[in-house]
Amino acid sequence: MPHRPLRLALLGCGTVGSEVVRQLRARHDDLAARIGAPLELAGIAVRRPELRRDVDVDPTLFTTDAAGLVGREDLDIVVEVMGGVEPARSLLLTAMSRGASVVTANKALLAEDGATIYEAADIYGVDVYFEAAVAGGIPLIRPLRESLAGDTVQRILGIVNGTTNYILTRMDEEGVTFADALAEATELGYAEADPSADLDGLDAAAKAAILASLAFHTRVTIGDVHREGIAGLSAAAVSAARDMGYVVKLLAICERTARGIGVRVHPAMIPRTHPLAGVRDAYNAVFVECDAAGQLMFYGRGAGGPPTASAVLGDIVAVGRNRVRGGIGTGESAYADLDVRPIGETITRYHVNLDVADRAGVLAQVATVFARHNVSIQTVRQIGRGDDAQLAVMTHTAPDAALAATVDDLRDLDVVRAVASVLRVEGEEGA
Amino acid sequence: MPHRPLRLALLGCGTVGSEVVRQLRARHDDLAARIGAPLELAGIAVRRPELRRDVDVDPTLFTTDAAGLVGREDLDIVVEVMGGVEPARSLLLTAMSRGASVVTANKALLAEDGATIYEAADIYGVDVYFEAAVAGGIPLIRPLRESLAGDTVQRILGIVNGTTNYILTRMDEEGVTFADALAEATELGYAEADPSADLDGLDAAAKAAILASLAFHTRVTIGDVHREGIAGLSAAAVSAARDMGYVVKLLAICERTARGIGVRVHPAMIPRTHPLAGVRDAYNAVFVECDAAGQLMFYGRGAGGPPTASAVLGDIVAVGRNRVRGGIGTGESAYADLDVRPIGETITRYHVNLDVADRAGVLAQVATVFARHNVSIQTVRQIGRGDDAQLAVMTHTAPDAALAATVDDLRDLDVVRAVASVLRVEGEEGA
Repeated sequence: MPHRPLRLALLGCGTVGSEVVRQLRARHDDLAARIGAPLELAGIAVRRPELRRDVDVDPTLFTTDAAGLVGREDLDIVVEVMGGVEPARSLLLTAMSRGASVVTANKALLAEDGATIYEAADIYGVDVYFEAAVAGGIPLIRPLRESLAGDTVQRILGIVNGTTNYILTRMDEEGVTFADALAEATELGYAEADPSADLDGLDAAAKAAILASLAFHTRVTIGDVHREGIAGLSAAAVSAARDMGYVVKLLAICERTARGIGVRVHPAMIPRTHPLAGVRDAYNAVFVECDAAGQLMFYGRGAGGPPTASAVLGDIVAVGRNRVRGGIGTGESAYADLDVRPIGETITRYHVNLDVADRAGVLAQVATVFARHNVSIQTVRQIGRGDDAQLAVMTHTAPDAALAATVDDLRDLDVVRAVASVLRVEGEEGA
Repeated sequence: MPHRPLRLALLGCGTVGSEVVRQLRARHDDLAARIGAPLELAGIAVRRPELRRDVDVDPTLFTTDAAGLVGREDLDIVVEVMGGVEPARSLLLTAMSRGASVVTANKALLAEDGATIYEAADIYGVDVYFEAAVAGGIPLIRPLRESLAGDTVQRILGIVNGTTNYILTRMDEEGVTFADALAEATELGYAEADPSADLDGLDAAAKAAILASLAFHTRVTIGDVHREGIAGLSAAAVSAARDMGYVVKLLAICERTARGIGVRVHPAMIPRTHPLAGVRDAYNAVFVECDAAGQLMFYGRGAGGPPTASAVLGDIVAVGRNRVRGGIGTGESAYADLDVRPIGETITRYHVNLDVADRAGVLAQVATVFARHNVSIQTVRQIGRGDDAQLAVMTHTAPDAALAATVDDLRDLDVVRAVASVLRVEGEEGA
């Protein structure tokens, strides 16, 4: 006997929402076969129903009354692609309280207050799926939540923001400045009108919080994430990294540390032989190091309407199947409750470029500062002479607090005209 | 109230099985927290219980009576890592009929007769999970079965056999012969004592059948897979590919075609700019092209005890969670029932190296043969002179049958001393 149709409501109908609607229509029979029941669109909540949208759908489905829509008792699935913490959170809580399962692409909400959402799902016995919240079309959440549930994740290094990766790729490959690369990204539509959330690492930090929560079975919010953006990055620093066999990437890093976990977003130098080094333009990739599975990488398009809609549709099928078969999928796993440690405890390496006076004794003074903080130097190279004299210092690993204090003290040295750049080094074997 | 322990039986205790036992012990509390119930090992079926195994486990758990073990009524999960079609199939059918869910790493069984296993799971309302059957520790099955369930997969290109990828990497990077690379792989333990299943593409073909089944929602068995191995590959062909900017890889290819799907395993030239080109040594990677999600890649260790055990443990957690929460996971999806088309219909490009006589009119005769089969030539290069004269021909795309017939006719030409190598070209943009 065919299953009754599953009733689905959509919150938001922008780029991703429109694509979801299009696919729901175009692939209706396919999706019904995969789920075991047809999907029926019960309503679409939007702020401006009069807006022209490129979807062929019954106009009476549009409503501005999102609260009224999710308050209905007959919904099976609520799909939220509106973004932002409120009103999305309240709407999803209402939907779950009425018995609907939830599919959301909302990284801001999950990174800010995922706990409230997961707890409600548990209380009401419904599903919360969110594959689209991190790295768009790349299947990543489900592998972390389920495939690797039998393993121990040690570290995640992710390129999870396409805008900044596009900019960094241009800077690396063409030697252009940050400003020029940003202008190009804006022109091509890779950067938004206000790109600050991308450039400041805010977008990547939200994703890092979600990935860390899943990998370490611990609640991590965006406030726990140490964050540095790429706006201050000079063409010279990128080019110096290139000359040394490294490429600069904005990384989201989640790792187990001696006393808990560390979660951070910052530009870093990675060796050109690292699998992440070849991830170019607006592509995303997430590199995962596990005890048993070893090194894994997931690669693909991290944003855009169709890839994100693919992730949303996959979740709709999963949640739909659960409805048809009875039962729910994986819920929150936060049993480990590890301590999120401050950035100062992170063990890392620094590469520091110093503009220095070209006279005898400079190296001795600089070396003394490193030694005072117990930071061991691996290599020093002098580049140029006279007013262009630079020292490029690569350290051994040390606590970030010691490295940061070293850099602060270097700024105070008379012989140091300027600290031209400071970059952490990541992704090295055995480092 | 804590859930009762879940009772688990293990079939087989070789490299993977021993690692599973080790992890079940070492990570008992962690796994219990993730599942919501502790796991209890009820028995381990082995052929030779007296064999020394590197696991610390109650020796009374070992039994030679596998049928008796799976015939018990009190098992929740049966984990099968013995391999081979029989007796594995009979044992799993018995286990499911008694109500146990199944976790298996058995690619041979699933590629040969997965339908019987999936149907039994459906009849008895139990789970069959098999993440470890393809590409070891790389989460791949779950992404295909679930994450991409809302998308349409057009093509999969996979490097799914570590032994052959190691050999091909050595041939490409060091210019060594197949025989020397194989000897090295054997010495390092990458190749088994009898490596024929790897070299002939049999191992990859089993994985291709499983991937195609999942990607296209269609039953595909290993008998449906067109298969060519790498044993005949010459150092000269690999080196010629290298000079042209290509690398030779043994690919498992699953693709939608005009009239159904095609599934094949053979060595192929791929451009060095393709993400798969950088997958070296014994690493595996699977490249997936979807309508909405675009290009995705999954990368990691495809074999070995710990990576495979990671996949098995992940499945144990998933199946265990389903037991605790009630309900089952994704079952077989074969609704699309697409036709598996013969290799002759595949649209592809050939690169052909011919040893030719060095005299006027050779190119005309060769070109006439291509034209007779409606195969259009993209480039021809003459290499060397006299007795070393070669023609390197790159075709445009054409049906494989026409290309194969062309090569057959070329062999009959007097001016062609030998067809030195024939390789398909894959992974080109817009090709």
